[in-house]
Amino acid sequence: MKEHPPNNEHIDSEMVKMEVNLDDISGEWLGYVMDKLFNAGANDVFYTPIFMKKNRPGVLLQLLCSKQSLDSMKKILLDETTTLGIRYYPITVHRMERRFEKVETIWGTVTVKLGINKGEVFQRSPEYEDCKQIAEANGIPLKQVYQEVWKNMNKSNS
Amino acid sequence: MKEHPPNNEHIDSEMVKMEVNLDDISGEWLGYVMDKLFNAGANDVFYTPIFMKKNRPGVLLQLLCSKQSLDSMKKILLDETTTLGIRYYPITVHRMERRFEKVETIWGTVTVKLGINKGEVFQRSPEYEDCKQIAEANGIPLKQVYQEVWKNMNKSNS
Amino acid sequence: MKEHPPNNEHIDSEMVKMEVNLDDISGEWLGYVMDKLFNAGANDVFYTPIFMKKNRPGVLLQLLCSKQSLDSMKKILLDETTTLGIRYYPITVHRMERRFEKVETIWGTVTVKLGINKGEVFQRSPEYEDCKQIAEANGIPLKQVYQEVWKNMNKSNS
Amino acid sequence: MKEHPPNNEHIDSEMVKMEVNLDDISGEWLGYVMDKLFNAGANDVFYTPIFMKKNRPGVLLQLLCSKQSLDSMKKILLDETTTLGIRYYPITVHRMERRFEKVETIWGTVTVKLGINKGEVFQRSPEYEDCKQIAEANGIPLKQVYQEVWKNMNKSNS
Amino acid sequence: MKEHPPNNEHIDSEMVKMEVNLDDISGEWLGYVMDKLFNAGANDVFYTPIFMKKNRPGVLLQLLCSKQSLDSMKKILLDETTTLGIRYYPITVHRMERRFEKVETIWGTVTVKLGINKGEVFQRSPEYEDCKQIAEANGIPLKQVYQEVWKNMNKSNS
Amino acid sequence: MKEHPPNNEHIDSEMVKMEVNLDDISGEWLGYVMDKLFNAGANDVFYTPIFMKKNRPGVLLQLLCSKQSLDSMKKILLDETTTLGIRYYPITVHRMERRFEKVETIWGTVTVKLGINKGEVFQRSPEYEDCKQIAEANGIPLKQVYQEVWKNMNKSNS
Ligand code: NI
Ligand code: NI
Ligand code: NI
Ligand code: NI
Ligand code: NI
Ligand code: NI
Ligand code: NI
Ligand code: NI
Ligand code: NI
Ligand code: NI
Ligand code: NI
Ligand code: NI
Repeated sequence: MKEHPPNNEHIDSEMVKMEVNLDDISGEWLGYVMDKLFNAGANDVFYTPIFMKKNRPGVLLQLLCSKQSLDSMKKILLDETTTLGIRYYPITVHRMERRFEKVETIWGTVTVKLGINKGEVFQRSPEYEDCKQIAEANGIPLKQVYQEVWKNMNKSNS
Repeated sequence: MKEHPPNNEHIDSEMVKMEVNLDDISGEWLGYVMDKLFNAGANDVFYTPIFMKKNRPGVLLQLLCSKQSLDSMKKILLDETTTLGIRYYPITVHRMERRFEKVETIWGTVTVKLGINKGEVFQRSPEYEDCKQIAEANGIPLKQVYQEVWKNMNKSNS
Repeated sequence: MKEHPPNNEHIDSEMVKMEVNLDDISGEWLGYVMDKLFNAGANDVFYTPIFMKKNRPGVLLQLLCSKQSLDSMKKILLDETTTLGIRYYPITVHRMERRFEKVETIWGTVTVKLGINKGEVFQRSPEYEDCKQIAEANGIPLKQVYQEVWKNMNKSNS
Repeated sequence: MKEHPPNNEHIDSEMVKMEVNLDDISGEWLGYVMDKLFNAGANDVFYTPIFMKKNRPGVLLQLLCSKQSLDSMKKILLDETTTLGIRYYPITVHRMERRFEKVETIWGTVTVKLGINKGEVFQRSPEYEDCKQIAEANGIPLKQVYQEVWKNMNKSNS
Repeated sequence: MKEHPPNNEHIDSEMVKMEVNLDDISGEWLGYVMDKLFNAGANDVFYTPIFMKKNRPGVLLQLLCSKQSLDSMKKILLDETTTLGIRYYPITVHRMERRFEKVETIWGTVTVKLGINKGEVFQRSPEYEDCKQIAEANGIPLKQVYQEVWKNMNKSNS
Repeated sequence: MKEHPPNNEHIDSEMVKMEVNLDDISGEWLGYVMDKLFNAGANDVFYTPIFMKKNRPGVLLQLLCSKQSLDSMKKILLDETTTLGIRYYPITVHRMERRFEKVETIWGTVTVKLGINKGEVFQRSPEYEDCKQIAEANGIPLKQVYQEVWKNMNKSNS
């Protein structure tokens, strides 16, 4: 996820959640617009299945962005979906401090994202894209890469 | 639900489940085709949200019908959806004996569907359409109609 | 969808989203209350499946309405569902200008809804109810009606 | 659901809804954290399936709590899930007056929760835990216990 | 999950999948019946949200069991749900060899389930109930217990 | 979707549906395995949200493939997911005749897939990848590309 300011803990109080209900668009178009919104700076975009009137299985598009991005997000939603109405409301986001460390494996280096709260590491996540690249380059299961990273990051941790 | 043979207990071993995955159709069209399939004799039709390739929120259409109806259901699915491939497999349906009784309320009569297993009533359901009509005609909550029916059907039952 | 003020672009800042979690109600009643809420002036009503405590598959009812409608919506929710608590929060809705044009087909006239942004048409949607009526009256697939409308509205457009 | 203040009607305007998107956690852990959050005083906790980027089926955790509980909820979410960012926004909750009455059945007493609006009972719900205990102790279907309670609570009601 | 025969690899060709569509039952009852079915020997039970006719959000109950259990499962479904019709079809289950090993942690022993394919361990999962008990007894996050087990099981593994 | 035999109408009676229930895997891994399965020849792969025991939001992976691919699919599922048991059952697939035609637009050529039933074209779908490429290359909405294709394919059609 794109992090506009730096990686230390802070509270973003200038964020908005946008929502659009869609019952007259295909899944193909929705797969496309998600990427467009991320590329334009959305902090998150996700879909929920919803039950709409007249027996219609619809989709609720939800989007998290800063208030400054509101207009550019609206533009994409109008261009790429079929909606004529866009809802939004302010939302606060508490972001934890995050740091990155390198962990060595037999196939190369993997970045691990650390979540920090009051100086304590409470979360360690191998970066997906690094692990994926190793799995594909070496023809091994993704699961095996993660397990190797867990072992090694824990080693250095004990 | 349409019951082709009579209402006594029996096992339908000549049924099929049909399935279609859809990622290029709108909810509006799907709301429409459900009614068409029921009217043409489908025993049940329902939708499940599915996660398809390329980040597409899709819909799985499932349909229960007799083997004799397979071709007429296929025709509707081709006419009204965007699919080019239809899956199906045989499925057995055990249907319980059902009877109908009349229950009086202060607003009129309601049909109650009884489920019977080896001579025992194990299930009593007020018919939705009857209750709905009473609620609308009398401007009262649907909940209130059901509660009145429950009270009266239990009275006659104790 | 019901549009209280006129069809030109505007921002509704006096809207609310209402939410109710339901784990002790049947789908039959939920199908019923949706219509009641729309008829009473809700701008939108939709259901999301939710996973609740004690392994319960529940339903989240969401409803969009103006602040003035808050009390009448509460009344229906209390009458027709089983909830004892109703949540809500303010939400802003940006509605685009919409116009309607008539498109001729070989089966009759269809209304098309146009979405307008800064004078530009960015969205054209054949009205579902018109298309449905034509499909049923002529015994043809709904898909075929839409395709004919698309062709003709594009013709006049090029 | 835990009710902090008394059981008469009131509007809680000091509530918050918290939200976390999760794509890197297993269902096992999510089943666990729900109980932890309820035990720590959450008014409600529920999950919605969401479609996230890169074809990931994720989970949206939603949580309702008082503003005073915000920090203790954050602590649990950081400890027990994998998130590094927590969203929240104020939400108002209108809670109806609730009373409890005892209903006798042939297997013992069951508590029934009444919903009251302007002095009128609009909702009667047998308490699940009471009914469950009777069903298990007597080896009878849960459905049968509810039906008996409905009959008896309606009797005393007519 | 209950494993009727031993833990070595085998193919169960005498299994059935049962299915019930439910639109007239509450989530409370569905939370209850899941446990009943597991206790009676179901190999798996799970719910899917489905969109049913008349705008009803319903639930699809799916159940995996051996053919010998078909009748006892039917009995529970009739007793505890509202269905009058139960569908089923044969299904084959390929079960991998599984073994269990003990892993020591600073808080006590945890069982780890190994998945074996042609003599190779391809899967290692700490048992949830063991980890949960340690987390609760020691007042630590569940996540921390898993991480300690991963570290130690990997140690002995390298 | 990969079509093993040619594009004329036929019934594949040698297909299988595979299913895996997953409650101990993250969305990240599931996003990855979908691509692996498609690349290895799966005809379709999709996810459904399911409610599993102990309040776990899980995922049902479903996969359609030919009987000959059963073993290679099993291998990937064991390597890349956490399952120890894989279910499957035979399923028939009726595939309609499909042809491809070229449609000219002002930005270049787009392939359109035609569905044919008894010599009649009942379905016309612009190929997503072609439209996406044009939208990205020309910096225009995807919606606009589809609309242009619809207009032009209908022109040649009238
Ligand atoms: Ni920030
Ligand atoms: Ni519409
Ligand atoms: Ni029959
Ligand atoms: Ni396609
Ligand atoms: Ni307005
Ligand atoms: Ni309750
Ligand atoms: Ni309160
Ligand atoms: Ni991530
Ligand atoms: Ni076995
Ligand atoms: Ni019914
Ligand atoms: Ni084929
Ligand atoms: Ni497990």
